Amino acid sequence: MAGSSFGQIFKITTWGESHGKALGVVVDGVPAGLELSEADIQAFLDRRKPGQSRYTTQRSEGDEVEILSGVFEGVTTGTPISLMVRNADQHSKDYSNISHMFRPGHADYTFWEKYGIRDYRGGGRSSGRETIGRVAAGAIAVKVLKQLGIDIVTYTKSIGPVEIKKFDLTEINANAFYMPDNEAAVKASEYVEQCMADKDSSGGIIECRVSGLPAGIGDTVFEKLDANLAKAVMSIGAVKGFEVGDGFEVAKSCGSDNNDDFIVDNGNIVKASNHSGGILGGMSDGSEIVFRAAVKPTPSISQPQQTVDVDGRPQRIEIQGRHDPIIVPRAVVVVESMAAITMLDLLMTNMSARLDSLKDFYK
Amino acid sequence: MAGSSFGQIFKITTWGESHGKALGVVVDGVPAGLELSEADIQAFLDRRKPGQSRYTTQRSEGDEVEILSGVFEGVTTGTPISLMVRNADQHSKDYSNISHMFRPGHADYTFWEKYGIRDYRGGGRSSGRETIGRVAAGAIAVKVLKQLGIDIVTYTKSIGPVEIKKFDLTEINANAFYMPDNEAAVKASEYVEQCMADKDSSGGIIECRVSGLPAGIGDTVFEKLDANLAKAVMSIGAVKGFEVGDGFEVAKSCGSDNNDDFIVDNGNIVKASNHSGGILGGMSDGSEIVFRAAVKPTPSISQPQQTVDVDGRPQRIEIQGRHDPIIVPRAVVVVESMAAITMLDLLMTNMSARLDSLKDFYK
Amino acid sequence: MAGSSFGQIFKITTWGESHGKALGVVVDGVPAGLELSEADIQAFLDRRKPGQSRYTTQRSEGDEVEILSGVFEGVTTGTPISLMVRNADQHSKDYSNISHMFRPGHADYTFWEKYGIRDYRGGGRSSGRETIGRVAAGAIAVKVLKQLGIDIVTYTKSIGPVEIKKFDLTEINANAFYMPDNEAAVKASEYVEQCMADKDSSGGIIECRVSGLPAGIGDTVFEKLDANLAKAVMSIGAVKGFEVGDGFEVAKSCGSDNNDDFIVDNGNIVKASNHSGGILGGMSDGSEIVFRAAVKPTPSISQPQQTVDVDGRPQRIEIQGRHDPIIVPRAVVVVESMAAITMLDLLMTNMSARLDSLKDFYK
Amino acid sequence: MAGSSFGQIFKITTWGESHGKALGVVVDGVPAGLELSEADIQAFLDRRKPGQSRYTTQRSEGDEVEILSGVFEGVTTGTPISLMVRNADQHSKDYSNISHMFRPGHADYTFWEKYGIRDYRGGGRSSGRETIGRVAAGAIAVKVLKQLGIDIVTYTKSIGPVEIKKFDLTEINANAFYMPDNEAAVKASEYVEQCMADKDSSGGIIECRVSGLPAGIGDTVFEKLDANLAKAVMSIGAVKGFEVGDGFEVAKSCGSDNNDDFIVDNGNIVKASNHSGGILGGMSDGSEIVFRAAVKPTPSISQPQQTVDVDGRPQRIEIQGRHDPIIVPRAVVVVESMAAITMLDLLMTNMSARLDSLKDFYK
Repeated sequence: MAGSSFGQIFKITTWGESHGKALGVVVDGVPAGLELSEADIQAFLDRRKPGQSRYTTQRSEGDEVEILSGVFEGVTTGTPISLMVRNADQHSKDYSNISHMFRPGHADYTFWEKYGIRDYRGGGRSSGRETIGRVAAGAIAVKVLKQLGIDIVTYTKSIGPVEIKKFDLTEINANAFYMPDNEAAVKASEYVEQCMADKDSSGGIIECRVSGLPAGIGDTVFEKLDANLAKAVMSIGAVKGFEVGDGFEVAKSCGSDNNDDFIVDNGNIVKASNHSGGILGGMSDGSEIVFRAAVKPTPSISQPQQTVDVDGRPQRIEIQGRHDPIIVPRAVVVVESMAAITMLDLLMTNMSARLDSLKDFYK
Repeated sequence: MAGSSFGQIFKITTWGESHGKALGVVVDGVPAGLELSEADIQAFLDRRKPGQSRYTTQRSEGDEVEILSGVFEGVTTGTPISLMVRNADQHSKDYSNISHMFRPGHADYTFWEKYGIRDYRGGGRSSGRETIGRVAAGAIAVKVLKQLGIDIVTYTKSIGPVEIKKFDLTEINANAFYMPDNEAAVKASEYVEQCMADKDSSGGIIECRVSGLPAGIGDTVFEKLDANLAKAVMSIGAVKGFEVGDGFEVAKSCGSDNNDDFIVDNGNIVKASNHSGGILGGMSDGSEIVFRAAVKPTPSISQPQQTVDVDGRPQRIEIQGRHDPIIVPRAVVVVESMAAITMLDLLMTNMSARLDSLKDFYK
Repeated sequence: MAGSSFGQIFKITTWGESHGKALGVVVDGVPAGLELSEADIQAFLDRRKPGQSRYTTQRSEGDEVEILSGVFEGVTTGTPISLMVRNADQHSKDYSNISHMFRPGHADYTFWEKYGIRDYRGGGRSSGRETIGRVAAGAIAVKVLKQLGIDIVTYTKSIGPVEIKKFDLTEINANAFYMPDNEAAVKASEYVEQCMADKDSSGGIIECRVSGLPAGIGDTVFEKLDANLAKAVMSIGAVKGFEVGDGFEVAKSCGSDNNDDFIVDNGNIVKASNHSGGILGGMSDGSEIVFRAAVKPTPSISQPQQTVDVDGRPQRIEIQGRHDPIIVPRAVVVVESMAAITMLDLLMTNMSARLDSLKDFYK
Repeated sequence: MAGSSFGQIFKITTWGESHGKALGVVVDGVPAGLELSEADIQAFLDRRKPGQSRYTTQRSEGDEVEILSGVFEGVTTGTPISLMVRNADQHSKDYSNISHMFRPGHADYTFWEKYGIRDYRGGGRSSGRETIGRVAAGAIAVKVLKQLGIDIVTYTKSIGPVEIKKFDLTEINANAFYMPDNEAAVKASEYVEQCMADKDSSGGIIECRVSGLPAGIGDTVFEKLDANLAKAVMSIGAVKGFEVGDGFEVAKSCGSDNNDDFIVDNGNIVKASNHSGGILGGMSDGSEIVFRAAVKPTPSISQPQQTVDVDGRPQRIEIQGRHDPIIVPRAVVVVESMAAITMLDLLMTNMSARLDSLKDFYK
């Protein structure tokens, strides 16, 4: 099935395996007239780059992006933008000894069942490196959104049992975990060190906040803003849960608590609270969009595990190679990218919602 | 934006407002040769029908479905199946006094901002009645899945603070809440009674289990099985959260706990546990699919609330009419329907994954 | 396969068989704020209605349309508009004697091969009656286009060997063939009378002209305006050819003849000729859009023909029932509808082509 | 708008401009297990390569393809296949003197109107070089089709006034025009020489025949096989007309001539003639598929033409550079590629048409 594209008008198509020649993305539907350089995209890619702290893999992925099309004299032309990152530091041999085994928690078995064949090197298409294309495209989407006055902040809300206690924007980039709370980051660090000592790994929660999105974005039935964000975020490798606003807490709540009153503030209609997370009936309500993603612990752990090989024989597996003890920090920018791509696409498809807008546009 | 369609090969298109003439769905891509009668679909619609207990609205919606096309001599022909339910018992007047106000927790304000116009009667397109089309289509999808050996069980996991303590399949239909635990249902009943006495409402959690789905269904990147289920389920009105397997619990887990070992059982490769909820790398792994949806409390509560009218003036609103104190029981079949629709579509698009399959099919 | 939907943002989904209970269409993505009544749609349906002249079938199809959703107080709300026409005058018995035979020139055999089952009454889904949904949706698209200053004129260019010699807009509705040349219509009438006397049928060519479409509509690669028009028009039952501007004549032409010079006229850039038919590189060029469709002779003829039955035995078939000796006149409004639907969708998806437009819209 | 993708299950996404860094395509939905090498694709690219005769441009485009993903150990894995061709021999300067002018017959003006910006070098995205991606993807589709027993032959039917008089398969590759009639090719050569002497260009007609396609492929309404082929073929740069079977000739035909009788041949149901071109009611009928495309004369001619510049001033333009006097020969493989891509996608989406097939597949 053709599952490597996402979006309708602003549409991305990613390609590439972790140990193939290169990875990339074709970004179609980018509006003409946007100043765009490789530096814009590199800045985003560097946020997901490994080797930036003790808690991310020490593989030295250069991950230098090349713009192959769609930009002329520094400006987008409206044609598809092809972005490519060559793969460099490939230790394929690390994988040869497990090439015939299904790693627990990985897509090895499901891939094998679907296709009857598998690129076993580093997860192939199911590797985290697949997100390079998403992030490269996300850099473009975020840049367009900024010009529309829409800002996205994404950060780590919790790592294992350690949750942030405050939200200080300035601290997000001041620690290895992208936590808006440096003290929490210190505790997270201690927790992850312990995981590493145990040859184990940790999960966590990523939170994303979007300000400036006009009210009315998203559709009323299947193409709801939250439904699209859910698909976008759940399509990221290790994500096992998604929630908006109060999320799973609503299950224990009452209508009188959960409903947000409407009030008038400085002549504008606003909500007195934001339990909804900025979305009502599938459309943005003018408040901050708030959502969270639950990320599972890295499945690649070096302690021995029980599994089966392709011939159906039980095997003991010990995964070598360099692996992040926690996926969360590097996934922060991936969540942000997918959110940006989703919202930009919905902003575009919203333009013909009213006859008056259509008439104004074409008069 | 054209947001009323869902699915690629098995594709549904719903239409209709809560107080319009009728509601319905066009189900396209139904395989030819399926025996199908109105009774098959009615059975599903009756599961979401109001007026079945004290805890669902006392509106007497007849909701009798009519098959308008696509079935010839009791069998599907492969052409689109149009299903319609006429609206009958419409108390539009109940809404005239709030027609100019934005009800908290509803889509009134966002609809107004998007379209500049609004069918204020009972939520219009954003009403729970929109799900009639989904459930009618779901009945067909479930019937096809059964013939492929795939079974879905959906039930209420919790209501407010009351959670099920056991899973007894035979009790699901033995209480008003569709809980697989009659004792929990008694407690839930007490809790909801209290909500009603307080002119308030309750949220809850719905859980869905799917058995018999072959391994390898879903795609590896954007069209992951869980990503599609997330969109399908989050597109249902009051759902604010979605999770698969251990869901948000993975955030606090370790890789050594979260990974499911592979073992050989009776010559088959199976997982020793099911933290993954039956999905690895976006594809079914042969275990039971398990996911949950968090449903918010009914926003229509009869205690007074603060809001604003279309002219931007503060208003006190008291919502009259008949409303469920809890959405969960009637949403159970909606979740099941969306899951079935999603999985059937992915089963269809999976058929050309291998060259050998394609060659076998067309030899 | 889900093949009953057309369009991306302005999207139609048709359903219904010729002798089923009803036929209809769901029109999604209609901008909110359009005044719309059943009379608007009926006027279009009446143009394709049978029984209007000797040369169209004498079946009395009432074809009264009902708006079931999406319109509130006479105005569109942005939600899907469901339109339905009940089937009335059904002579299913006319078909029972040929139910086991494959009529030459019809879809009986291909339908059987694809689905292994077939609604043999009047062609079922492959009947010309399927176009009711297209025309009902076309009425809406044409009404929106008019408000944008875009006008479509569609007419019969030729019938059998009889071609129009002039283009007089006022004569199109003054003859049974919708020819802009009453004299040609007289000759066409004589020709068709002869076909009828011979128990035979005639083909013809339909031409469509669109004025007022701004330059730049359509996309540069696969979603070209002409490519989309081609699909739209070739998806109509009996159409076997499609061409834009000079069409097949370009094969014999030279670049120096075929190229249209650009000139300045009243300060506007215009073309000195219109060999391109108003489309260059897949986008509208500001000139009139001109395209043609070749329509085959009605396959239902009452003279005996050679065929095979479902058991693979040779059979002699004589088709009874009432059939148009020529499809062209009634297909004129179908071509117009499909053109309007295509262009409106492309106008909508074009709105985000430039960053400046996006910024203006959301400022 | 995102217009650079084509297909649903077998889906291609092309990118690149004539004078950018590279051009390419991402081919998604390729079944796993296909042996595929760069040589397979190169063989197709070489068929559209310039510089092969006097009648194609003398630019030395190397056009060497690189497989960047989706193939592991010589076999496709089911993941997207990224194919790239670096641009080499770029004479951008040839275009600087016409960068501010709208070339007649080209997309310069429409591009400018749509995007307000334009990569003027060699047509940018509207260049014939855009078809590199189509042809690279077509090579894969053709290879899969061959394994299903489906063969495609594409050739030049006419050039200017010169039409083929016979069909000899062995002569197609024996002349510079890909005509199945060497004598006609000699006359075509004389005609094109005259065009060149006149600083002019010629149009022509391409014909395509497909054998081995099973009956029942394509859908009954909008996704008809012929409708999809029409879009596929009309989306190729210079194509102005498309027809199936008897095509425009049907307009002058009678039902008794145009209908193809069904007969029994060797126990198989076949048609006694093939006026339908192998398609009835939008589905393949088991006969040979036959369609034609009308290709306009190369718009780049070196004789002076009248045009306007971006500032709206009249200008005399003389186009330098190296240009084919006729597009047809190099477009033959492009037509074949688009046909193959279209049919393979429809073969895939057809697999779930019958419940029995679905049950067989998943039993």
